[in-house]
Amino acid sequence: MCIQEIPVEEKIYAENDRIAHDNRHFLKDRGILGVNVMGAPGAGKTSSLLQIIKGLAEQNVYVIEGDIESDIDTQTLLAQGIEAVQINTGGACHLDAPALQLAFPRLSLQQPGFLFIENVGNLVCPAEFEIGEHLKMLICSAAEGSDKPYKYPLAFEKAQVILLNKRDLKPYVGFDDSFFYKGVRALNPDAPIFEVNAKTGEGFLEVVQWFKERLGK
Amino acid sequence: MCIQEIPVEEKIYAENDRIAHDNRHFLKDRGILGVNVMGAPGAGKTSSLLQIIKGLAEQNVYVIEGDIESDIDTQTLLAQGIEAVQINTGGACHLDAPALQLAFPRLSLQQPGFLFIENVGNLVCPAEFEIGEHLKMLICSAAEGSDKPYKYPLAFEKAQVILLNKRDLKPYVGFDDSFFYKGVRALNPDAPIFEVNAKTGEGFLEVVQWFKERLGK
Repeated sequence: MCIQEIPVEEKIYAENDRIAHDNRHFLKDRGILGVNVMGAPGAGKTSSLLQIIKGLAEQNVYVIEGDIESDIDTQTLLAQGIEAVQINTGGACHLDAPALQLAFPRLSLQQPGFLFIENVGNLVCPAEFEIGEHLKMLICSAAEGSDKPYKYPLAFEKAQVILLNKRDLKPYVGFDDSFFYKGVRALNPDAPIFEVNAKTGEGFLEVVQWFKERLGK
Repeated sequence: MCIQEIPVEEKIYAENDRIAHDNRHFLKDRGILGVNVMGAPGAGKTSSLLQIIKGLAEQNVYVIEGDIESDIDTQTLLAQGIEAVQINTGGACHLDAPALQLAFPRLSLQQPGFLFIENVGNLVCPAEFEIGEHLKMLICSAAEGSDKPYKYPLAFEKAQVILLNKRDLKPYVGFDDSFFYKGVRALNPDAPIFEVNAKTGEGFLEVVQWFKERLGK
């Protein structure tokens, strides 16, 4: 369900932000870095997470999977021995802070480490809602084309780290590097952009290193 | 802006549906078939429209382009001599019926034909809002993977016609035909599914023929 432009909007955002603030402290008190993983449908969010988690083998990692329906991604993670739980939003187009709060008791969250929260596949709505994360990772796919920063600016603007996945598909879709980077940098001068291939694992060494450096900050 | 689960929700949907009903009649009175074009970011909605419109050369075609920001797609269409106007939603994650109504006076809409309304790139929210269309076309990309019907069921359920674009990328992403078709057919037994390549035009003859058969119905 997705509604816009209504008078109660500010109140709902304020209540969400209050709970997001609580979530952020809940995680920080346990030494856990919360990462809100955003991206369009099929960008490769779960495949990228699998590669990152493999690289973070010495760290404790927890995952919350947000989907409208199905638990396909959670089953994939559980099959790899990763502590993961599913949130089904039942139609809602993004995760919000109360949904995250309700999921916390379903994970152990006893040891310091990382909590990756994979948001609903959507390049619009997830960027508008704080859920209690410490940083946002945007995953886009080269197959989506190089004009995405121009059309969906908020997600690019708010990300602290950006993955350009399926880099191997660039030649097949005529991906324009210069147009893409120009668009991203106009919105976000600082976030590192890693070009990766989540199917093969190429490019993930640097991503993993970047995450390791974030822990404890 | 995207808000959920609020008491005024029903009223907003009812008001939207009332205007959608007016829009539908406005178009029908002019012999114009309204097509709501839905799909995730980068599915190839505009590229597919260009191929379809090329095939409909003897017909009058109008296009409304919905985007959060930018008029990249409208410029592409105008450059091809197509009568097109842009709606920028300024953040909203889908088009609604009032937005469509406001766009009508910006097009001539004097002759019978087709009005293609390209919705915001989003596989979730556009499926929830009637805008005044006569049919919905869902465009997905093989690069998004074969599990999309399971994760985003509403868009697949509501479509009267489905295009699986970028069919040439199937081997590179390990696209599972049988899993995809099983998922779509569980939600939507009847909609034709056309596998196409909007870059080359392959597969569009059948799509164009299907649209021609719809006119006047």
